[in-house]
Amino acid sequence: MAELTIAEVARVADGEVEGDPGLTVRGVKPLDEAGPGDLSFVAEPRYFPYIAASQARALLVARGSDAPVEGRTVIRVDDPRRALARILAALHPEERPAPGVHPTAVVGEGVEIDPTATVGAYAVIGDGSVIGARARISAHVVVGRGCRVDADALIHPHVTLYDGVSVGERSVIHSGARLGSDGFGFVPEGGRLVKVPQVGGCRIEADVEVGANTTIDRGSIGDTVVGRGTKIDNLVQIGHNCRIGRSVVIVSQAGISGSTKVGDGAVLGGQSGFQGHIEVGAGARIGAQAGVTASVAPGETVSGYPARPHREALRVQAATFKLPELMRRVKELERAVLGKGAAGS
Amino acid sequence: MAELTIAEVARVADGEVEGDPGLTVRGVKPLDEAGPGDLSFVAEPRYFPYIAASQARALLVARGSDAPVEGRTVIRVDDPRRALARILAALHPEERPAPGVHPTAVVGEGVEIDPTATVGAYAVIGDGSVIGARARISAHVVVGRGCRVDADALIHPHVTLYDGVSVGERSVIHSGARLGSDGFGFVPEGGRLVKVPQVGGCRIEADVEVGANTTIDRGSIGDTVVGRGTKIDNLVQIGHNCRIGRSVVIVSQAGISGSTKVGDGAVLGGQSGFQGHIEVGAGARIGAQAGVTASVAPGETVSGYPARPHREALRVQAATFKLPELMRRVKELERAVLGKGAAGS
Amino acid sequence: MAELTIAEVARVADGEVEGDPGLTVRGVKPLDEAGPGDLSFVAEPRYFPYIAASQARALLVARGSDAPVEGRTVIRVDDPRRALARILAALHPEERPAPGVHPTAVVGEGVEIDPTATVGAYAVIGDGSVIGARARISAHVVVGRGCRVDADALIHPHVTLYDGVSVGERSVIHSGARLGSDGFGFVPEGGRLVKVPQVGGCRIEADVEVGANTTIDRGSIGDTVVGRGTKIDNLVQIGHNCRIGRSVVIVSQAGISGSTKVGDGAVLGGQSGFQGHIEVGAGARIGAQAGVTASVAPGETVSGYPARPHREALRVQAATFKLPELMRRVKELERAVLGKGAAGS
Repeated sequence: MAELTIAEVARVADGEVEGDPGLTVRGVKPLDEAGPGDLSFVAEPRYFPYIAASQARALLVARGSDAPVEGRTVIRVDDPRRALARILAALHPEERPAPGVHPTAVVGEGVEIDPTATVGAYAVIGDGSVIGARARISAHVVVGRGCRVDADALIHPHVTLYDGVSVGERSVIHSGARLGSDGFGFVPEGGRLVKVPQVGGCRIEADVEVGANTTIDRGSIGDTVVGRGTKIDNLVQIGHNCRIGRSVVIVSQAGISGSTKVGDGAVLGGQSGFQGHIEVGAGARIGAQAGVTASVAPGETVSGYPARPHREALRVQAATFKLPELMRRVKELERAVLGKGAAGS
Repeated sequence: MAELTIAEVARVADGEVEGDPGLTVRGVKPLDEAGPGDLSFVAEPRYFPYIAASQARALLVARGSDAPVEGRTVIRVDDPRRALARILAALHPEERPAPGVHPTAVVGEGVEIDPTATVGAYAVIGDGSVIGARARISAHVVVGRGCRVDADALIHPHVTLYDGVSVGERSVIHSGARLGSDGFGFVPEGGRLVKVPQVGGCRIEADVEVGANTTIDRGSIGDTVVGRGTKIDNLVQIGHNCRIGRSVVIVSQAGISGSTKVGDGAVLGGQSGFQGHIEVGAGARIGAQAGVTASVAPGETVSGYPARPHREALRVQAATFKLPELMRRVKELERAVLGKGAAGS
Repeated sequence: MAELTIAEVARVADGEVEGDPGLTVRGVKPLDEAGPGDLSFVAEPRYFPYIAASQARALLVARGSDAPVEGRTVIRVDDPRRALARILAALHPEERPAPGVHPTAVVGEGVEIDPTATVGAYAVIGDGSVIGARARISAHVVVGRGCRVDADALIHPHVTLYDGVSVGERSVIHSGARLGSDGFGFVPEGGRLVKVPQVGGCRIEADVEVGANTTIDRGSIGDTVVGRGTKIDNLVQIGHNCRIGRSVVIVSQAGISGSTKVGDGAVLGGQSGFQGHIEVGAGARIGAQAGVTASVAPGETVSGYPARPHREALRVQAATFKLPELMRRVKELERAVLGKGAAGS
């Protein structure tokens, strides 16, 4: 952890100081948890009431905001959340482990490990794999044969890369993720299920983040691909031959069946599920728990099961709530029109 | 496995013996699987018909029960399920491994390991971590830097504790659980998604159980906390900064988005999903697969998507089933009132 | 990877050659990705338009098909998908590692390892376990005490077998699967939740495939069983005492609560959820994301939440879509019959 002056913080955050630029801060905390040595922040007006009681002497506030900050040192920025990301990075610089291969690592034949890379205790690296500059292979990672981990990638403990998987520059793979496991392909034959060999690849491009215990299957024939800058949360399942675009956001526990394509910048909600062989357009937004059974147009927002345009889903939902009342009204109409008695229907 | 007399079993179970207190039993089995050396049990009247054919010579039965137990030795207890928990513990005493650190374990600098603790093969323990009395770190566990595993905690194989995670006394962490992985926080900037450093902690209190392959993210700023006595099943996701109360039950594959609070004693059904930044009140009960999009009052029972009070959800569900019929009735009314023909609508 | 002549491929696929039987192929690719050295395939008429532009010189086609294959070498088979499974296996023969126990493996007392089996780097095998002929225990696998891994089974890296688990012949367990973890059983006592010891077993029969990061709990008393030939995808949860039949297909992220029985040949869709203590009949088909709250008859197809016969679910779904319109029609009827004004309801 570092200690920064408000002037330094303002420089990192591209902000302006009102008050004491020499004040120092060591951390960032919410208004109600911050101590005198912390920077706090006011991201939305609903937090205004908490300012008075906060111990924070320095606050991060949006440029136009009329937050009641009297008596505090303030840094004004365009977007407090973005500024926060940068300030946190400055206050908590990543501690990079010393480069080198731990003596307990088992390294196969023909492996190339850049001298600036780190390979942790008990890591196992299969024949012919290539580990790039400053890449970090943590303890207990198993890298198969013929894999590629590019420069500055960070592979957390207990990750498995099956044979032939590649991970792009600066990508972060969290603990327990499985990349390149066999796709789920079987054909019935004589009452049994015969495995279809899964011989495709699995390619994770640059700047991707893969969450803990997430599974991404290799292609059956052809590759499964996760595009540059895509962020995947924990416990997500991506089936064989999926093509996930760039800067896609996939929230925890979503599941994507085989051969589905997801366009750039799409956002897939938590626990959402996707049929195989469909296409989710660029910039589409999929609600949490949605069941997507057909392709979604670019930019569209869908929700519910089966997923439909979000506004329509909301309208139907609202109507559903009123169903019991509607039934009563129809019964009343029947009585008036058809002379049906209450007991009769 | 131990062998106990019925008298000993009755003492453990706080029960009364009818029949032969000197009979011995070695295990507990359901009525239809029990052999002559097993104790069996009759938890509900619907099992009465199976008693006659059972080979079990000894039965655990509720005090008031009129189960047809003629000719068997019987232990009568207040609550057979609770009694069973105690009897199983007595018949299957945990075999604690010998204390000590396996020669293959890699232990960092400044680590404190209590002499009564066990550290298994290939475990890796990061600098400055503290392992308490009788704690068991199984084979292939990776403990980060600055972690704390308190007395009598049991960490199963292949668990990852990221840096700075703490696990309370007697807590059990099952295989493949990931504690303290990065929360899912990104801000858009210039068409890319920039990671918000996740610098908070992850604190598991005492007597917690965490299921296999469950993921609990560390806080972004501030901690993620799981309260004392809470039981979490397999493959559950708990997002950053969640505050889970005490004695909460979270069933498999539930997913809780960031900053959500769950009150003491709440029960979250399997595959239920929770929006971020909401509050689930103490003692609330959430149905399986429910999609909880707003705060839930203490003691309330909700289900469905979006989750609503369970009775209302059931009423709406029942009405939904009758929808096709309702449509026919409305069409009939229209014919009678408005003279619309069948072909016209 | 092997290189085969079309004549050899046809023999493997039980097909007939039209064209050049001496042509060689090294891989299989979809029409649009295939190069001149690849075999491609035409599984359905909707792919006919892609044939003309494909670089593939050899095509796999169904016997009756009128696909426009002029100028290509063709192998005609009864079922292209089944033929593909065999051809892929022939072109990509599994590379079996050399038999033997890696010097870093930690092997307990009384363990029997067949001399033809392989045990990888850092594997840990508990006392009294038995590893069969040609079985492969990959790097970083932890096998508990008293386990059995039968002939030709393949256990991928980072799998955990808890004590007493058995895996049948030829079964494949993917990375990060947890077999025999404790079931989720607690009884309330004095405001706390007391663990019910989970002392049953976990038995995986022959020819089973278990996906990455899937969890299968051991029985509480009695065993959890997965039947011969069943295929389980990634991130599936199977609770304690479940009995899964033979040749069952369980798609990713499905969750089955304790003591539920699934009959032979049933197909459980992705993210489907199952109540405990119910029975899913043989050959039943469960839709993706279905919430199964009651037993399902053999051969039945169900979907939705709560799951009901699929046709009925579809009918209700369709009616739900028309609900807002139905409400307008009822309002109009009320105006006509009861004289209610638009503003009044």
